[in-house]
Amino acid sequence: MIENATKTPLSEYGEFGLIDLLTKNIQLKNPSTILGVGDDAAIIQAGDRQQLVSKDLLIEGVHFDIRYYPLKHLGYKAIAVNLSDIAAMNAKPEQILVGIAASSRYTVEALEEIYAGMYLCCEHYGVDLVGGDTTSSLSGLCISITVLGYAKAEKIVRRSTAQTNDLICVSGDLGGAYMGLMVLEREKEVFLKDPKAQPDLEGFDYILQRQLKPSPRFDIVDLLEENNILPTAMIDISDGLASEILHICKQSHKGCTLYEDKIPIDIQTNDTAMDFSLIPTTIALNGGEDYELLFTVKQSDYEKIKTIKDISVIGHMNDEKEGCYLITNDKKSIPLKAQGWDAYIKRP
Amino acid sequence: MIENATKTPLSEYGEFGLIDLLTKNIQLKNPSTILGVGDDAAIIQAGDRQQLVSKDLLIEGVHFDIRYYPLKHLGYKAIAVNLSDIAAMNAKPEQILVGIAASSRYTVEALEEIYAGMYLCCEHYGVDLVGGDTTSSLSGLCISITVLGYAKAEKIVRRSTAQTNDLICVSGDLGGAYMGLMVLEREKEVFLKDPKAQPDLEGFDYILQRQLKPSPRFDIVDLLEENNILPTAMIDISDGLASEILHICKQSHKGCTLYEDKIPIDIQTNDTAMDFSLIPTTIALNGGEDYELLFTVKQSDYEKIKTIKDISVIGHMNDEKEGCYLITNDKKSIPLKAQGWDAYIKRP
Repeated sequence: MIENATKTPLSEYGEFGLIDLLTKNIQLKNPSTILGVGDDAAIIQAGDRQQLVSKDLLIEGVHFDIRYYPLKHLGYKAIAVNLSDIAAMNAKPEQILVGIAASSRYTVEALEEIYAGMYLCCEHYGVDLVGGDTTSSLSGLCISITVLGYAKAEKIVRRSTAQTNDLICVSGDLGGAYMGLMVLEREKEVFLKDPKAQPDLEGFDYILQRQLKPSPRFDIVDLLEENNILPTAMIDISDGLASEILHICKQSHKGCTLYEDKIPIDIQTNDTAMDFSLIPTTIALNGGEDYELLFTVKQSDYEKIKTIKDISVIGHMNDEKEGCYLITNDKKSIPLKAQGWDAYIKRP
Repeated sequence: MIENATKTPLSEYGEFGLIDLLTKNIQLKNPSTILGVGDDAAIIQAGDRQQLVSKDLLIEGVHFDIRYYPLKHLGYKAIAVNLSDIAAMNAKPEQILVGIAASSRYTVEALEEIYAGMYLCCEHYGVDLVGGDTTSSLSGLCISITVLGYAKAEKIVRRSTAQTNDLICVSGDLGGAYMGLMVLEREKEVFLKDPKAQPDLEGFDYILQRQLKPSPRFDIVDLLEENNILPTAMIDISDGLASEILHICKQSHKGCTLYEDKIPIDIQTNDTAMDFSLIPTTIALNGGEDYELLFTVKQSDYEKIKTIKDISVIGHMNDEKEGCYLITNDKKSIPLKAQGWDAYIKRP
């Protein structure tokens, strides 16, 4: 009975505006609830450690296009991106629950393929699949994942605790997953025009891997621990660097300065972007799905951070009133905007 | 890329067969994982108590018909049926996470209505909404709920621990939710033929309430505790009495005998079933969505059980080799079959 409601389209709010609107009046009541809505995961007291709980919905046609996405990779990625939310809290995952709704277009063998990918990812990261739900849908595939992770209370890192002058760091390199998607999209178009055409995916191994088989960065969580560095704030990059740093700034009530020349971009990402007439920095800022860790550390940790391979220092936090800026290669200062993937990037 | 897979339709396995197939090789690895797939909830160690985790997907057109289902009730019910899984473990819920995917047919106001129902249910049962995900879908509405509950380890009741000669008990009465659905379906047909027709729902208050606003039976959990009764096995009735008692029998490796004349059916359920030319016992056995608790107790608890209002003793457990039977009012013994709701009952 949705006819009687007045009509504000969902697009008017967008994903984050909608979450703010729908959750703004929550008052937490149970002492076991340490942190509710607003970070990569909720925090629950669990004896002498704390539990991180996160959930995600993946919807066919919105988050993936089944026409070119291998089912086993889809299963693997569905788990991996959820595990990444636990890495983003500086914690380790132990359990996962899977809900799956599939239309009659899907066969038993198709679901077995998806689950094979899920189990592969669970195995790789030492996670137990402990429950879930299997049901039908009228059209398409809907995957819902809940992940449970754990850490000592004092090790958990939130989005809201970055301080002015903290260094902004990112793991790995950015934009690859998006360029991998662009290549897959291009080959889909070729295939749709001529189903006999062979996909031309050679030379794109790295960026295809970035798109099809993302790696939650628990190695970075371990390296930070080994080097005795506790980030002051952290988030994972699912929607793009710009969107994520703005989440940290908003929730920490700070500003930031990023330097274009410091943003790590792989050569294959760079070259493919140029081939597609796209600006590599724009892709790195807004591409999303890289599942790298974006975090802030105290300035005094700089000497330790710079010894860790695969971490780049890309800027620093400011007071809130100074705003959020990118310093470009030609020394211009431009305001950072979250173009995220729902506004800027046309997905399948 | 589902075209390459060989083709076994999902319907060949059904929901439970599919879950068995997809989860049969799981080996649990983490010491915090106490119980995985196969009960109303997974069990996780959480300090000096244990945590119950359950998740459910609700899909438009499969689990609900938005044409006659009030959105606020839909939100309430989505939470309530998940809380019922925690009651079925003899535990209490504390947190919930909500994932929601909605097509552009849904307005902001529509989602606010759904969330209003969710918050009402959370408030009623003292549960914190701590996280989730809001995204778009190409068509329809998909709601995914994860619930976290807690109990002392020794209080948690599984499906798999019923013993021969245990008494089979059920709370409340059965079949009402299904007859409520039948009434709503009938009025929908009238409405579709003549949109000006007023729905004729008078006199059906109880069964409509059973369908639209189910109550997880935490009052029964409390009463059992107060009377010092620990069930030997328990499950909640979401798919129908027959389906659920067969789950207990299968997982406990036991048989059972139910007595038709002991099955509690409300007079309004009975009369409405007759009006629809349906057999009330069949509806009580297979209707589903009553969210009552079905549990077994030791024979020695009989004197205590019979003093508790709103609990009926409806049969007893047998050795596995004796099978599962219903003794009808005319003293015939007929094999129990799980007709559940996906096979027997045509849903919207």
